[in-house]
Amino acid sequence: MSDQCIFCKIANGMIPSATLYEDEEFRVILDLNPAARGHALILPKEHAANIYELSEHAASEVFVLAKKMAAKMTDALHCDGFNILQNNGEVAGQTVFHFHMHLIPRYESDQVSIGWKPGETTQEELNDLVKLIRGE
Amino acid sequence: MSDQCIFCKIANGMIPSATLYEDEEFRVILDLNPAARGHALILPKEHAANIYELSEHAASEVFVLAKKMAAKMTDALHCDGFNILQNNGEVAGQTVFHFHMHLIPRYESDQVSIGWKPGETTQEELNDLVKLIRGE
Repeated sequence: MSDQCIFCKIANGMIPSATLYEDEEFRVILDLNPAARGHALILPKEHAANIYELSEHAASEVFVLAKKMAAKMTDALHCDGFNILQNNGEVAGQTVFHFHMHLIPRYESDQVSIGWKPGETTQEELNDLVKLIRGE
Repeated sequence: MSDQCIFCKIANGMIPSATLYEDEEFRVILDLNPAARGHALILPKEHAANIYELSEHAASEVFVLAKKMAAKMTDALHCDGFNILQNNGEVAGQTVFHFHMHLIPRYESDQVSIGWKPGETTQEELNDLVKLIRGE
């Protein structure tokens, strides 16, 4: 746990939060500036700045919890869809540098914009990227 | 596997794809309409329409794979950030109804817009939501 990290303090109960769920490894809280009604965050109790630092164990648990919470929240909120989003780095929209996973219930009438202009690519570029990323 | 599902066919190798990684349960492919350079998708080979239908086993594996791919892709692409995004339902931006997880490398200069106007809430609304979702 980091003394300087606000999400460490929230996850470990030193700062109160609107808690939807808690176990030994995670706390799920409501976001105070929600994108949509019921917007929540999964916080691991152990500090990791981002996905790169997250332990393999936490990585194996966090999406199981996301699935459980998505089902529970969809039942309770009657939302029309659901985004799971996890941002790494300022350019990607990360504002607190403690790993967190957004659980965003979606509604026909909401104002959330998660999307992009579909790009174009070529077979040559695809081949080059496959080689580059596979390290061949 | 569903005969009608294009992602089942791609995941199981019946339709060729730019494959970055494959194991017994998953295939990771490059998106043909990338949000940014190197945009990839994790596809489970077993059909599930969305997070609600995904098996608990696949849920425990998929984010471990996302972490592995994010590290590998960040090394290869020298991107500045990284989004992991998983959409459920048309309203949430899902266009193919076979579970998939977006791996989106982010760059200072890219055109991707993943965000929202921060909303407001009250302590009363937070309390009501906690009760509603916890089922109390």
